[in-house]
Amino acid sequence: MELVSRILGGDRLALARAITAVEDGSPSSRDIIREIYPHTGRACVVGITGSPGVGKSSLTDGLIRDWRREGEKVGVVAIDPTSPFTGGALLGDRLRMDSHSTDSGVFIRSLATRGQLGGLSRATGAVVNLLDGYGCDVIFIETVGTGQSEVEIMRFAHTVLVVVAPGLGDDVQAMKAGIMEIGDVFAVNKADREGADRTALELEYALDLAPAGRPWRPPVIKTVATTGEGIPELAAKIREHGAFVRDGGNLAAHSLRASEFAIRELLAESVVIPVIERAKASGRWDEIVAGVAARKIDPYAAVEMLVAPRGEDEGIGKGGS
Amino acid sequence: MELVSRILGGDRLALARAITAVEDGSPSSRDIIREIYPHTGRACVVGITGSPGVGKSSLTDGLIRDWRREGEKVGVVAIDPTSPFTGGALLGDRLRMDSHSTDSGVFIRSLATRGQLGGLSRATGAVVNLLDGYGCDVIFIETVGTGQSEVEIMRFAHTVLVVVAPGLGDDVQAMKAGIMEIGDVFAVNKADREGADRTALELEYALDLAPAGRPWRPPVIKTVATTGEGIPELAAKIREHGAFVRDGGNLAAHSLRASEFAIRELLAESVVIPVIERAKASGRWDEIVAGVAARKIDPYAAVEMLVAPRGEDEGIGKGGS
Repeated sequence: MELVSRILGGDRLALARAITAVEDGSPSSRDIIREIYPHTGRACVVGITGSPGVGKSSLTDGLIRDWRREGEKVGVVAIDPTSPFTGGALLGDRLRMDSHSTDSGVFIRSLATRGQLGGLSRATGAVVNLLDGYGCDVIFIETVGTGQSEVEIMRFAHTVLVVVAPGLGDDVQAMKAGIMEIGDVFAVNKADREGADRTALELEYALDLAPAGRPWRPPVIKTVATTGEGIPELAAKIREHGAFVRDGGNLAAHSLRASEFAIRELLAESVVIPVIERAKASGRWDEIVAGVAARKIDPYAAVEMLVAPRGEDEGIGKGGS
Repeated sequence: MELVSRILGGDRLALARAITAVEDGSPSSRDIIREIYPHTGRACVVGITGSPGVGKSSLTDGLIRDWRREGEKVGVVAIDPTSPFTGGALLGDRLRMDSHSTDSGVFIRSLATRGQLGGLSRATGAVVNLLDGYGCDVIFIETVGTGQSEVEIMRFAHTVLVVVAPGLGDDVQAMKAGIMEIGDVFAVNKADREGADRTALELEYALDLAPAGRPWRPPVIKTVATTGEGIPELAAKIREHGAFVRDGGNLAAHSLRASEFAIRELLAESVVIPVIERAKASGRWDEIVAGVAARKIDPYAAVEMLVAPRGEDEGIGKGGS
């Protein structure tokens, strides 16, 4: 496949086209991933997550610059909910591409969260593979941290950076009941604001509550992304964790976990969509949905009707009318 | 089924047991939902969402009190990520149950987001059905607003309340690219804080950018949940939107949308889990996952192997070793 050879050769345009194909779930995306997959597994994947407004994007920009100073090739997958009001992801891309647009060693792409049934995870996994095959040394996946899908996507990352900011008094409190356990490195960004020391301290306390015997104790680093303060220390800790994963024998376990997740998500999409498409084509879909809406068919019965062999269709008319 | 009769009769303990069954996905949950489903569809479902720290729980408490003053029966489904550090959802439940524990007209339950492949949505839909059958007049679903799964869960709601708070300068900006479009009513909570007027104004501006001709213009209400300020106005607007959905002919469209979503999620779970279970039982699962982790099998090929008829299994050994 010419497109894949071009990506492997470092062709940006080919990469952009392939990403669009996998994002849209177009038929060619399967062939693209199949062909590029044996050439992947080399990149270090870093997940960056945190609530809206903590400054994840500025921090990611700072980290990009740090990796670029080392001459490494950087890929970024930014996952933001799309908005019909602003055009969402697209606008963000343009603004952020500006500061790196003259640098051919950086490739940034936003993914919209319009997918369903694991569509977002499937697309993220595929884009990570593409950036990996393209030759990126590090791939940052940036998400908003509070959602189930977004937390799950972090399974693709070798290292998860959780970003918080002082200001919301109950922020760490809210966080504890959330993404605390997936963080390998913590950044308290906007550390020039009042309350930064307290936030950092609260994080340290919360981390102290973790079960004993964990081989990696997540560090907490204070940063001011806008001035670059603390970024080198943060980058060093991320690299240190990467080495810990590679050298500590955790890479195999991580690969298995990420692969299992990728298969599950792809399976959901591959198995479910054809069932729905088939039912739509025969008109049964609308009939069944209407039956459930009218409380004449319960959701479990609906699923049985959808997956039942054709010969057993007699039940629908009875239940749905 | 005795359990279902007891729920329909208003038995709290039976309700609690049924919720545990559907949350755990136990075999009996299917029968419970099947039997209760024809008795549902009466409750008004209100989704409450917003970033961590905006005061959603306090606001929900205020709304519960308002509905209770009218003598209506209230159900609450609170969805919070679980934390192994704090016990997360469970602790929250206890704290919040305290203030309503003497009131038999309120039933509060937290759901953990430990599910996969739509498990969270499936459980939420099922719990809404149980609370509906139990006789709740209103059901509040409280989620953290930034995630894909959590936004999708809002499809179960007739009315979506989006809660923001002043303080994070870029909060509304971040929100715009997210849950702006799903809100039917907006609350600016912590309105005694500096910047509340500006936040409200920014929301109004953002809402003005919505496509013209929308029959419902979401109102923006300032509240201070801790003192109760603004809660009656907020409750009135939520009721007004409920009437708009019922009387404006949108209820049927809403029911179809919610039913379609419920079927899709249940389908994903029902179809995918047996495939994985079967592969695990035969030992193929571990083999295939290891092959994908080693980049010897690509994820698409893995899915094909999993769903292929048994006779076509020869490919695995070849690809996976």
